Amino acid sequence: MSIFNEFRPLDEKYLIEYIKSTPSLSSLLGDSTNLQIKEVGDGNLNFVYIVVSPSGSLVIKQALPYIRCIGESWPMTKERAYFEAVALKEHGHLCPAHVPEVYHFDRNMSLIGMRYLEPPHIILRKGLIAGVEYPMLAEHMAEYMAHTLFYTSLLYTTTTEHKRQVAEFCGNVELCRLTEQVVFSDPYKVSEFNRWTSPHLDSDAKAVREDNVLKLEVAQLKSMFCERAQALIHGDLHTGSVMVTQDSTQVIDPEFAFYGPMGFDIGAFLGNLILAFFAQDGHANQENDRKAYKKWILRVLADTWNLFHKKFVSLWDENKDGPGEAYLPHIYNNADVLRLVQEKYMQDLFHDSLGFGSAKMIRRIVGVAHVEDFESIIDAAKRAECERKALNFAKTVMKERKKYVSIDEVIWNIQQIDS
Amino acid sequence: MSIFNEFRPLDEKYLIEYIKSTPSLSSLLGDSTNLQIKEVGDGNLNFVYIVVSPSGSLVIKQALPYIRCIGESWPMTKERAYFEAVALKEHGHLCPAHVPEVYHFDRNMSLIGMRYLEPPHIILRKGLIAGVEYPMLAEHMAEYMAHTLFYTSLLYTTTTEHKRQVAEFCGNVELCRLTEQVVFSDPYKVSEFNRWTSPHLDSDAKAVREDNVLKLEVAQLKSMFCERAQALIHGDLHTGSVMVTQDSTQVIDPEFAFYGPMGFDIGAFLGNLILAFFAQDGHANQENDRKAYKKWILRVLADTWNLFHKKFVSLWDENKDGPGEAYLPHIYNNADVLRLVQEKYMQDLFHDSLGFGSAKMIRRIVGVAHVEDFESIIDAAKRAECERKALNFAKTVMKERKKYVSIDEVIWNIQQIDS
Repeated sequence: MSIFNEFRPLDEKYLIEYIKSTPSLSSLLGDSTNLQIKEVGDGNLNFVYIVVSPSGSLVIKQALPYIRCIGESWPMTKERAYFEAVALKEHGHLCPAHVPEVYHFDRNMSLIGMRYLEPPHIILRKGLIAGVEYPMLAEHMAEYMAHTLFYTSLLYTTTTEHKRQVAEFCGNVELCRLTEQVVFSDPYKVSEFNRWTSPHLDSDAKAVREDNVLKLEVAQLKSMFCERAQALIHGDLHTGSVMVTQDSTQVIDPEFAFYGPMGFDIGAFLGNLILAFFAQDGHANQENDRKAYKKWILRVLADTWNLFHKKFVSLWDENKDGPGEAYLPHIYNNADVLRLVQEKYMQDLFHDSLGFGSAKMIRRIVGVAHVEDFESIIDAAKRAECERKALNFAKTVMKERKKYVSIDEVIWNIQQIDS
Repeated sequence: MSIFNEFRPLDEKYLIEYIKSTPSLSSLLGDSTNLQIKEVGDGNLNFVYIVVSPSGSLVIKQALPYIRCIGESWPMTKERAYFEAVALKEHGHLCPAHVPEVYHFDRNMSLIGMRYLEPPHIILRKGLIAGVEYPMLAEHMAEYMAHTLFYTSLLYTTTTEHKRQVAEFCGNVELCRLTEQVVFSDPYKVSEFNRWTSPHLDSDAKAVREDNVLKLEVAQLKSMFCERAQALIHGDLHTGSVMVTQDSTQVIDPEFAFYGPMGFDIGAFLGNLILAFFAQDGHANQENDRKAYKKWILRVLADTWNLFHKKFVSLWDENKDGPGEAYLPHIYNNADVLRLVQEKYMQDLFHDSLGFGSAKMIRRIVGVAHVEDFESIIDAAKRAECERKALNFAKTVMKERKKYVSIDEVIWNIQQIDS
């Protein structure tokens, strides 16, 4: 399929040549004499080209063999494009409404051709910073997570298929290792990569590195991340991996996908919503105090979990006689026992999600990669104040996560720390 | 290496031909004109030939493409021999004193050539039925489990190596599925394969099938078995997989090996010791009331766990600056935090072991495959009485396992049920 037999980074000229010689791409664009091409990747991780013709459009994404992070060069396998393509196709099959279509994949070139998410689609994180409400967000994200996680878990798949898939995604180990390092390790030790709003949070960062109970908890989360193949997770489901309009929600960039704990995805999304919440005071001004918007974020938080819970259990009920082998219908054969196991499953998943969510929050404040929600607050003292609240909330949740019974308790706790 | 390019079941004539043409085997036997050959497998699962010459000896084990169980024919991949050979080599490398040496493996023929464990080695289960004490048993089994489990876990290996190994052993899915069915599923539902001492235990078996809380607990254990790649476990570590003399302990038959929860191995061994304990009353007679022997079994139970605990934590301490990536030395950098994480890890492992041990006990009383400890008790009423005590103990432990703090509490509970 490819005109290149081995990897070479794209430039505009080669991109046009590549598209012309690839029918699955050229057929979408029609006449290719009049292509508009725009490179929109940040250039640090992947090339991302938007290609528009009078009769069609698409995105070409190419993985580069490194991640450049805060000026540092960090080698990273371009094979991640393969796992991203497989995950996009699998999740797209399970939830087509919220995953962009893949038109073409070229393993040699680490190149994915996929649907262009045309304006007004923007990255959710940018919308949250701008204070824009998305009325369908909770519903759509709950739908996406319920479908992708349920159908790739042992609640729906056989153990034969599950082990086959687990083995395949073990190949994405380099991306898993990146997560292990930047989420579960670096923030809890002295690392050249860590940074934080300094000097304001110097003692807060030090306290994280010296908190034995926090280290005990993060060890358990890290072990679960490394050992537990529960479902095909996105692996990086923060608010920068979601593109939105008022009525569309599209999940992109699953290059970290592997068979891992479901709570890692749910926690990533909820944790990043909470970061957005605590950043709002830094974006407030005379025209907009962001108070109403903060309430909206908390509603999205509650709705996302509650709708996810409802949809996930509905899928379980609908498929209780299906191919899944975790809960055989001849064993879980009465309403009482089914309710009992579902309640326990969802309670454990809730606690896992809170644990992973708190880990994702902590690493965004004292680890290598920060979030624009906070970074865009120019006043360092104000930014540090927002970050400290988020950090304190996350530390509490990581330590006490198993005591929470409902998302309402989490929200109550957020409000306590915010007040 | 093989004279056969594809699988064919051995017979004595072909076995001799095979050995003669295989230098790694023939060189161990020297003059092959005078071979003594004896088939000792039960013929249901594998061929096992003992081959002795004037100057050497070995065992040839060949996997057959089925398991015949209680007269039923049950197809089963002969590829299990591959995983058995890999596990024997890996565990043998980690604990050479307690794993027989592999001389030769032929994947086409599903054939392993290995050390012959000469008399007086007998299967531990038979020794326990005969009432023989083995003074080194606890020490040796603790050593075997500590070394094989520690060194194949993320406490010692990198996540790169771990994921590579996990992927490889995902291939042993058929044997995992057999365990899923006979340990975690069949005993809790109506199944043509289940059997029990009838009519004595009819209502006990029914109670297992109708116990919602038990079903809730076994679901969590099954999920852990299917999802959690903690270490390279033996996968079938009952007292029939151990050969002993007064000073030797050898673990054989790891054909169920895969990356699973450590507690499955520890629980299998402890659970089968407890089955041996509850069977003793059925073996008591006027010459030997077995009371002293029952105390010895309980001592082995306590010593095995306590010595395992000690050895495992010692290996952790010795290797805390080693290649393992679960607990990085720059994070777990003081005695307090190291003690905290080790205590939590060992407590969780203890609870997992009790859970899996109880599942292994229950399935041996109301599932398809029973143990000779009970089966050799001719008097059905007496057998049922022994089995009922074991079953009731196992049910209690499965439900309450997380409340136990020490093995002494478990033993106290055994004595309560036994009195």
